[in-house]
Amino acid sequence: MIRAGIVGASGYTGGELTRILSLHPHVEIAVATSRQYAGKKLSQVYPHLAGISEIICENVDIGELVDRADVFFTAVPHRTAMDIVPHFLEAGKKVVDLSADFRIDDAAVYEKWYQPHSAKKYLDEAVYGLPELNRERISSARLVANPGCYPTSIILALAPLLKNGMVDTRTIIADSKSGTSGAGRGANVGALFCEVTDGFRAYKVGSHRHTPEIEQELAKLADEDLTISFTPHLLPISRGILSTVYASLRKDIDQQDIRELYQAFYKNEKFVRLCPDGSFPATQYVRGSNYCDIGLKVDERTGRVVLVSVIDNLVKGAAGQAVQNMNLICGFDEELGLETVPLFP
Amino acid sequence: MIRAGIVGASGYTGGELTRILSLHPHVEIAVATSRQYAGKKLSQVYPHLAGISEIICENVDIGELVDRADVFFTAVPHRTAMDIVPHFLEAGKKVVDLSADFRIDDAAVYEKWYQPHSAKKYLDEAVYGLPELNRERISSARLVANPGCYPTSIILALAPLLKNGMVDTRTIIADSKSGTSGAGRGANVGALFCEVTDGFRAYKVGSHRHTPEIEQELAKLADEDLTISFTPHLLPISRGILSTVYASLRKDIDQQDIRELYQAFYKNEKFVRLCPDGSFPATQYVRGSNYCDIGLKVDERTGRVVLVSVIDNLVKGAAGQAVQNMNLICGFDEELGLETVPLFP
Amino acid sequence: MIRAGIVGASGYTGGELTRILSLHPHVEIAVATSRQYAGKKLSQVYPHLAGISEIICENVDIGELVDRADVFFTAVPHRTAMDIVPHFLEAGKKVVDLSADFRIDDAAVYEKWYQPHSAKKYLDEAVYGLPELNRERISSARLVANPGCYPTSIILALAPLLKNGMVDTRTIIADSKSGTSGAGRGANVGALFCEVTDGFRAYKVGSHRHTPEIEQELAKLADEDLTISFTPHLLPISRGILSTVYASLRKDIDQQDIRELYQAFYKNEKFVRLCPDGSFPATQYVRGSNYCDIGLKVDERTGRVVLVSVIDNLVKGAAGQAVQNMNLICGFDEELGLETVPLFP
Amino acid sequence: MIRAGIVGASGYTGGELTRILSLHPHVEIAVATSRQYAGKKLSQVYPHLAGISEIICENVDIGELVDRADVFFTAVPHRTAMDIVPHFLEAGKKVVDLSADFRIDDAAVYEKWYQPHSAKKYLDEAVYGLPELNRERISSARLVANPGCYPTSIILALAPLLKNGMVDTRTIIADSKSGTSGAGRGANVGALFCEVTDGFRAYKVGSHRHTPEIEQELAKLADEDLTISFTPHLLPISRGILSTVYASLRKDIDQQDIRELYQAFYKNEKFVRLCPDGSFPATQYVRGSNYCDIGLKVDERTGRVVLVSVIDNLVKGAAGQAVQNMNLICGFDEELGLETVPLFP
Repeated sequence: MIRAGIVGASGYTGGELTRILSLHPHVEIAVATSRQYAGKKLSQVYPHLAGISEIICENVDIGELVDRADVFFTAVPHRTAMDIVPHFLEAGKKVVDLSADFRIDDAAVYEKWYQPHSAKKYLDEAVYGLPELNRERISSARLVANPGCYPTSIILALAPLLKNGMVDTRTIIADSKSGTSGAGRGANVGALFCEVTDGFRAYKVGSHRHTPEIEQELAKLADEDLTISFTPHLLPISRGILSTVYASLRKDIDQQDIRELYQAFYKNEKFVRLCPDGSFPATQYVRGSNYCDIGLKVDERTGRVVLVSVIDNLVKGAAGQAVQNMNLICGFDEELGLETVPLFP
Repeated sequence: MIRAGIVGASGYTGGELTRILSLHPHVEIAVATSRQYAGKKLSQVYPHLAGISEIICENVDIGELVDRADVFFTAVPHRTAMDIVPHFLEAGKKVVDLSADFRIDDAAVYEKWYQPHSAKKYLDEAVYGLPELNRERISSARLVANPGCYPTSIILALAPLLKNGMVDTRTIIADSKSGTSGAGRGANVGALFCEVTDGFRAYKVGSHRHTPEIEQELAKLADEDLTISFTPHLLPISRGILSTVYASLRKDIDQQDIRELYQAFYKNEKFVRLCPDGSFPATQYVRGSNYCDIGLKVDERTGRVVLVSVIDNLVKGAAGQAVQNMNLICGFDEELGLETVPLFP
Repeated sequence: MIRAGIVGASGYTGGELTRILSLHPHVEIAVATSRQYAGKKLSQVYPHLAGISEIICENVDIGELVDRADVFFTAVPHRTAMDIVPHFLEAGKKVVDLSADFRIDDAAVYEKWYQPHSAKKYLDEAVYGLPELNRERISSARLVANPGCYPTSIILALAPLLKNGMVDTRTIIADSKSGTSGAGRGANVGALFCEVTDGFRAYKVGSHRHTPEIEQELAKLADEDLTISFTPHLLPISRGILSTVYASLRKDIDQQDIRELYQAFYKNEKFVRLCPDGSFPATQYVRGSNYCDIGLKVDERTGRVVLVSVIDNLVKGAAGQAVQNMNLICGFDEELGLETVPLFP
Repeated sequence: MIRAGIVGASGYTGGELTRILSLHPHVEIAVATSRQYAGKKLSQVYPHLAGISEIICENVDIGELVDRADVFFTAVPHRTAMDIVPHFLEAGKKVVDLSADFRIDDAAVYEKWYQPHSAKKYLDEAVYGLPELNRERISSARLVANPGCYPTSIILALAPLLKNGMVDTRTIIADSKSGTSGAGRGANVGALFCEVTDGFRAYKVGSHRHTPEIEQELAKLADEDLTISFTPHLLPISRGILSTVYASLRKDIDQQDIRELYQAFYKNEKFVRLCPDGSFPATQYVRGSNYCDIGLKVDERTGRVVLVSVIDNLVKGAAGQAVQNMNLICGFDEELGLETVPLFP
């Protein structure tokens, strides 16, 4: 059994990591930290875990913490992560970091969108943890930067097209819609039930921090610099992201071509499902699972391709992908702990 | 008192017309038709109307129906409308048609997206009922084609820019999200609570019938032909449409310029509200009202403008705008019956 | 025009008072207080009020505040209310208090369920503001204690039976379910969207503070002391309370008898609607309105009567009833400002 | 591997059986029937099952069907079940029937609440499939009558008290609230999203068909005849039932006593979880799992006990309990396929 540590266990991502790891045959949760709930059972914070996990939240000093597990999930806000991740690495531990701190290759870009970076020397080493694209490198990494939820949905939607030079990279628009769990479990008025339910809004139009991360990874795929329009919206659902992505086609391809392209690109990927022609994905069909479902449409009237992708933001967009990455860095079967079936209705 | 007739009273739009007209000081509902519920009080079909309206649903022959009111709202499916509207006009009555049958100027375009048209001779006469753009013509019309819900949200968002030649018309993308009441009150599995709640999906990508209507009206504003990408999505809310509209700027304008442009364009419009800079609209803030709220963002990174507009699809997107049109053709104050305050939370 | 003051304008009840009063022909909102949002327009706190109200939130000293209006709505937490209400009364103003502070006649009972009372001398004078039962006394009152939301739904359901000695008062059980707006707009984890949506729970079983208020008013109706079981639950909806009330029948009455009893009792009440036999009310049919809908069932198998009542907790359960009370104490038509139609769907 | 047959695979219960059985190590779904979707993959009916199950819906003649599997789940409406179940039994197969047809011991009672019974001779043999109460008998049964969803939640809540003679059986009231998936996947207006969302209602007050089933099983536990009040309500959630159960205590017991009683009664039950004192269960904490969570409150003011129980109506209330029963009759570990963790948020 591998000993896993969850740093920041009381957020929604922490709860989800606990849910998934409790189903994993080769992992035990050895330590779970939470300042706010130190001393409480995690099942008091999350009653759905009663009878599943007996773990108690602790506020452990970093010096002690490094010895308590073999692999660490840092499910903490950006800025906090950069302070603690180096300690784990220096103690020879493996880390899957769920914050944004090690996702951006270029420290200057990070510092423009976030704040000063205190652990720049690890940026080169960190591997961007999208297994469908970077499986090899992840497998030998010590530090995996687990992708953001929006980026995961957008990058997987566009990868086959960009990799094959099919679209005009100046025309990419990603219109994304996220469930409210993406906002975390902090008590703020904007996330109250009455503010969110039976409603819908856009936010941070043209200014969301996931923008540079998306552009960086898309640029690698396209092998050229690019700038996109990215608009996030808030859905009155708990879990799920749907991204509708538009791009002008550079080459003359039809619906059949694009389908074959995607089928070939993702043919060995257990966690990517393509919708039949004429069908488009829905967030409720991936709820609670690690799937990314993608629908494809070549619109001949406009010369654009329209891609629609969905994930569960807490699973493929966070905790599930983190476990997928952990499986890779620990040499396990990539699907362990993730064989759940989506919950519908 | 003007006598109003509601043809198709038992759909959501019919119920909403009843709600609004019951607040109107100069109108009485003289007849309400419904095949399915003939003989029943409308308040049995819609218990929220108990004590508000005593009207009984009837299945009235068209020959008799024409005499029962002075102005008719035809809240029936397209195809049905084109069969009955001529009878009202020929009897000298005024009509606000809420179907798509008289919205498309060119019968060939209509027939390509819908089906054969049996009342082409009235297409020229019908006025597209968007009062903010066509107030004068509506005021003297006999037949008003009440706009579609998606088109209303998109056209009002783009009008000031197109009218002033500000954007490259080849780059327009409208990503729209609608509440489920837009699907009507028919019993179909896809609209069941369990299929829709806690979920989100795209549908009819690149093929929705509102596309030609949107393109026609935008083309008039831009004074040039244009083709857009339009993607509708289904929101797990009852009421509300939010459209996120993207276009590349043709001229060098900044946030301040665009704000002034919109303020000038809509300065006398009671039902259009502009969000403060940095704020974007939310469907819940227009719930139950005739408002269209618009947020504006010039994204200098990409050279695009991003517009976000919201309406209540049953009010400004249907029954409310229909009453606004009726007020115009009957010579009433345009706001009568529509002074309700949005219901939040 | 009467000048109204809203003390505590930024809570959900304050927003709702603003919505309703803006529709009132004889009232202007002269002052709206909020510590948290002082200096901001209320329409920045509540964007749905943009274009409706230009009022600016202020943090006004009580000494100055008393002169700014003729009638005050105190929409503040209990304990705060008892500190400020006396100032208004001493300045000769009228007050509708929406807190619990003046609802309980017996200070000892209040102090057992709440905390020490600092304005006991006004308890006798305060009139319990349920117009359907206390219209006369309210009309001549200076201080109206606006009823709690749960109590309103339960008392109106039981009043005809208790007034006529029809039920065994030892057997009353009220199982109530409330929308989340009843929890207010404070930022707490338990009211977050993700905690509430797609879920349902009971809370404060047998210990909710509305219990003594309900028992007090039911006892007056029954003319005997009584103790009830009251269980509140939290619904994943914004607005609405539904109470299911059980009691054993003392007399041999059937469905027809009970219907006639309720029809007679409420025959002149505009805001109470009885459901037809076999139908039961739903919260969505009173949404946004001041109605209380009641369904009735005599269950001959068990000898019990089952009553189901619904209100909008922010309207008939708070702001709407408060305006109804203000209309009475100011000598206006009781329905002014409250003629809205429920919003469905 | 055991071959399982799902009769009626396209309803919500059928979909849920497929989800659960796909996780079962010793079972394969050998045949899935659906008239409406015959010839379609089940994953076309339920896209969440894409990549999980390749099963194709068939319309198989009963004569052929009996040979296609070893154990059958009949997830069909009552009345249909009684026609087909005998064929399976006569062919030597085992059956878990999810309809109501074999739950009522007394044919006369069944016929009073449902319709004539055509397979009375199997009523005696059928075992009521609540494993926590009838484990032994189920283990040796050929025909298990899988309990109704409401009855499961109510019987598990009351069993320890009734078994120990603690309550006055004339005073039992069960106020239950169910998610909308309980209404099935049939297309009817009352289950449309817009009719259900943001709302709440009671239905079939005092007349729901689960009443005799509940009374029958409670009577066995209490060892005396009894009559209860049972009121179902419709929640705007997909999954989940919460029952609030009231009864007057016959003996003088306090909170501590009752807790010990329940702990002893359920101490070996994996799928029953007791909430800590002062906590009450919520449907979202059992979502997607086979748990029944129970909260307990002795209310000394009224001499009543209040029990609050929650289940996922599609799992412990239907498909999960059916698999639990199948495990028993097939000699498997009772928890196989059911080790999922509740999905929250």
